[in-house]
Amino acid sequence: MASSGQPPEGEVRQRATGGVPAKQSPGSPARNKLLAEHIAKVKAATEVSESEPDDRLMYNEDSIEHLTKGLPQASDNVMGALDSALSSLPPKWRNWVVRFIFTCAMIGSFVMVVRQGPSWLMMGVFAIQFKCFHEIITIGLAVYRLYDLPWFRALSWYFLFTSNYFFFGESLIDYWSILLRKEQFLHFLIAYHRLISFALYVLGFVWFVLSLKKGYYMRQFSLFAWSHVTLLLIVSQSYLIIQNIFQGLVWFLVPVAMIICCDIMSYVFGFFFGKTPLIKLSPKKTWEGFIGGAFSTVIFGLLLSFILMKYPFFVCPVDEYVEANTECTIPSSFQIREFALPRPISFIFKLLKKEPTINLYPFLGHTLVMALFASILGPFGGFFASGFKRAFKIKDFGDVIPGHGGLMDRFDCQLLMGTFVNVYIHTFIRIPNPAKLVQQIMWLSPDEQIEVYQSLFDKLVRNGLLAENGTILSLAA
Amino acid sequence: MASSGQPPEGEVRQRATGGVPAKQSPGSPARNKLLAEHIAKVKAATEVSESEPDDRLMYNEDSIEHLTKGLPQASDNVMGALDSALSSLPPKWRNWVVRFIFTCAMIGSFVMVVRQGPSWLMMGVFAIQFKCFHEIITIGLAVYRLYDLPWFRALSWYFLFTSNYFFFGESLIDYWSILLRKEQFLHFLIAYHRLISFALYVLGFVWFVLSLKKGYYMRQFSLFAWSHVTLLLIVSQSYLIIQNIFQGLVWFLVPVAMIICCDIMSYVFGFFFGKTPLIKLSPKKTWEGFIGGAFSTVIFGLLLSFILMKYPFFVCPVDEYVEANTECTIPSSFQIREFALPRPISFIFKLLKKEPTINLYPFLGHTLVMALFASILGPFGGFFASGFKRAFKIKDFGDVIPGHGGLMDRFDCQLLMGTFVNVYIHTFIRIPNPAKLVQQIMWLSPDEQIEVYQSLFDKLVRNGLLAENGTILSLAA
Repeated sequence: MASSGQPPEGEVRQRATGGVPAKQSPGSPARNKLLAEHIAKVKAATEVSESEPDDRLMYNEDSIEHLTKGLPQASDNVMGALDSALSSLPPKWRNWVVRFIFTCAMIGSFVMVVRQGPSWLMMGVFAIQFKCFHEIITIGLAVYRLYDLPWFRALSWYFLFTSNYFFFGESLIDYWSILLRKEQFLHFLIAYHRLISFALYVLGFVWFVLSLKKGYYMRQFSLFAWSHVTLLLIVSQSYLIIQNIFQGLVWFLVPVAMIICCDIMSYVFGFFFGKTPLIKLSPKKTWEGFIGGAFSTVIFGLLLSFILMKYPFFVCPVDEYVEANTECTIPSSFQIREFALPRPISFIFKLLKKEPTINLYPFLGHTLVMALFASILGPFGGFFASGFKRAFKIKDFGDVIPGHGGLMDRFDCQLLMGTFVNVYIHTFIRIPNPAKLVQQIMWLSPDEQIEVYQSLFDKLVRNGLLAENGTILSLAA
Repeated sequence: MASSGQPPEGEVRQRATGGVPAKQSPGSPARNKLLAEHIAKVKAATEVSESEPDDRLMYNEDSIEHLTKGLPQASDNVMGALDSALSSLPPKWRNWVVRFIFTCAMIGSFVMVVRQGPSWLMMGVFAIQFKCFHEIITIGLAVYRLYDLPWFRALSWYFLFTSNYFFFGESLIDYWSILLRKEQFLHFLIAYHRLISFALYVLGFVWFVLSLKKGYYMRQFSLFAWSHVTLLLIVSQSYLIIQNIFQGLVWFLVPVAMIICCDIMSYVFGFFFGKTPLIKLSPKKTWEGFIGGAFSTVIFGLLLSFILMKYPFFVCPVDEYVEANTECTIPSSFQIREFALPRPISFIFKLLKKEPTINLYPFLGHTLVMALFASILGPFGGFFASGFKRAFKIKDFGDVIPGHGGLMDRFDCQLLMGTFVNVYIHTFIRIPNPAKLVQQIMWLSPDEQIEVYQSLFDKLVRNGLLAENGTILSLAA
């Protein structure tokens, strides 16, 4: 039956290059033959079979459900003890309790991991990244029915490994070499980082091309695209998130906590006051929840920042903190500073005979911007995930967290938020690190080192920072 | 008829969360009903309609052909004059002549563009990038039948624009500011480059989410993935290629010429001597063509490098060449150097009482490595493209070049090659640019500038390049 659907090579060619086919009136013999062939395929497709070449019915809405309904989904049936204890509650409340318990459990374990310090936290980010990738790839394999090509899963994991090395190779090896106090630790992995990444990728690419199997081409290419988009979304964004951790734990914790707060408070406000639906994609979301969540997030974010800002553990850039052994020069964002007020407000202040300035921690301003992003644009990450789930007829990405679903169900907004914070830091906060620049100069040839030195000397003299004889001039002067 | 295939909301939910359905024996009433529904859908699908929600038959091999066969394909029917002149030839030779003429035309116009200098060349790369993107997106729109959601095409182009700004923003604006001799030319586009890119992307993302339309979800997400993979492939790789141009024209020309040579010579060797098939994906490719192509590529590459290396126009890094007005210090890769021979060979030289060294241009060694990559791994880019075309039942990506097909048909291997050259340059050639490092130091605060200066001073003194009083010590000493 499979061969009936697969026209011989020559025929495909001919049809693909040929012009417009002769118009067929409904019910013509040719048309009926086509239809009969399709029916045969439909029959074949409705039987549960894991290996079907492209040429059979590939998917329609029903078959998508058929394919994805076996995937693990959130359920309220948790452990026996909890289950029987909750059995007397009505379902809506039962779900509420399960969700509540596991929300607390997740937040609790998150706090525990944070207390262990940045290394544990990074490992946590990796674990979450792997699980999210696993969830999305599992859906892909189900949608494209590629279970019977076993190395396809292996290939996906190989690409995950490769892209992780590409993104994290340089920064993480650097970090571990500081941590382990070995200057040349795995140095070749840094020196040839790009070349090794590329070689690994080309190997995977060649593997993919050699693995192409007639009758599976379309699905293999689709899954190739699927896994690449997943990698792009998950690996690159978790890289950005880990960069945020390096900048100081607070840059990671405050955004994460704000998204959690926004999720919870939108749910709570929606639960109690929700009336006006927000968007068709997620029928449970309401304007009341959205607005309530936004307000709560801003207030919560400012409070949390205000508390965390007091501790070097949270505000110090990670490598400096580790190198200098639990100390660092507090970055300027966390030191109170005088700001001049803008025009209309400063005018009022002047009328009141007050100085038109205000003392603020710059980081609180940053928190405000992040809170607004978290509560206004963050939810679009969630809408995107909802749309994706609807497209493939699944309710959740998995079943690891009872009452919540898969990890991706909880981390959809975190990724977008992490990227925003990274871009924000890059644009407004991070400045080139003096120590790193000196290191880069030392990689040059002696000639060029001297060249840099002279050029720097000339410019510093011209700017009045240095006297002609090399004496450093007072900056106040 | 459309509504019959789209179950109501509640039903979908229920089915998605429910367990395994009751087993249906073939021929049961439920089964027959399902089948009848499918037949109705098949009927609907075989009619030519451009707007069909996800829930109808989506695609199978026949419908893929049905969808993609309207796409433009290479044909031998060119202009009238050429056509009638060739009409007496047998088809195989006719195709050969058309191919030959347009190969010459393409190489000719390529040489013309190169003579105009790097700016024209970069614009050429952009033009090719746009056309390749257009070809792939057109196939995607055909496969997913999304013609009736007109802004989807707009969204794809928007993402193309955004990713181009992201990749090229910094380097190209920098280049144009040198070219136009305006130091602050569009400076805000550089200073806020990441933030602007991210904002543009988020805007597109929100646009996509808001554009999701019930019944189209699956195809919209598929095309989203499709366009992202295309962007990843085309924009990022053409960025790498333009970086190669900046390193010096020769780093762009030699690899491109080698891929062209490899293509032509494989074709010629295959045409005359081809017997043993190489890979199932491309039945026309033979081992004889592969090996003949590889040999020719190595020889041609070395010859071409040897010729081009003599001209500053080809070997100078582009910005230095433009800044210093058609001159530069020739990079060391293009200056003859003495190499010590490795053990077994050096032993023979010693027996012959000769110096065990050899004088070589390092670039010829680089060319050899690139030639091997071009001829051994380059073809996999082509196999990948062949597999892709087979998956979607198209013969060519387009019809812009008579006898060849679409642009993507000619540039499939160039992308992979360009990436390899970029990685190679990054790993073995490019060293941090002294002038850029000084510029980065000048972006620091005055305090930090002094910090860098002192730290650099100390290190240079320690390494014996500088005396304590700041005198530069002779490097020879």
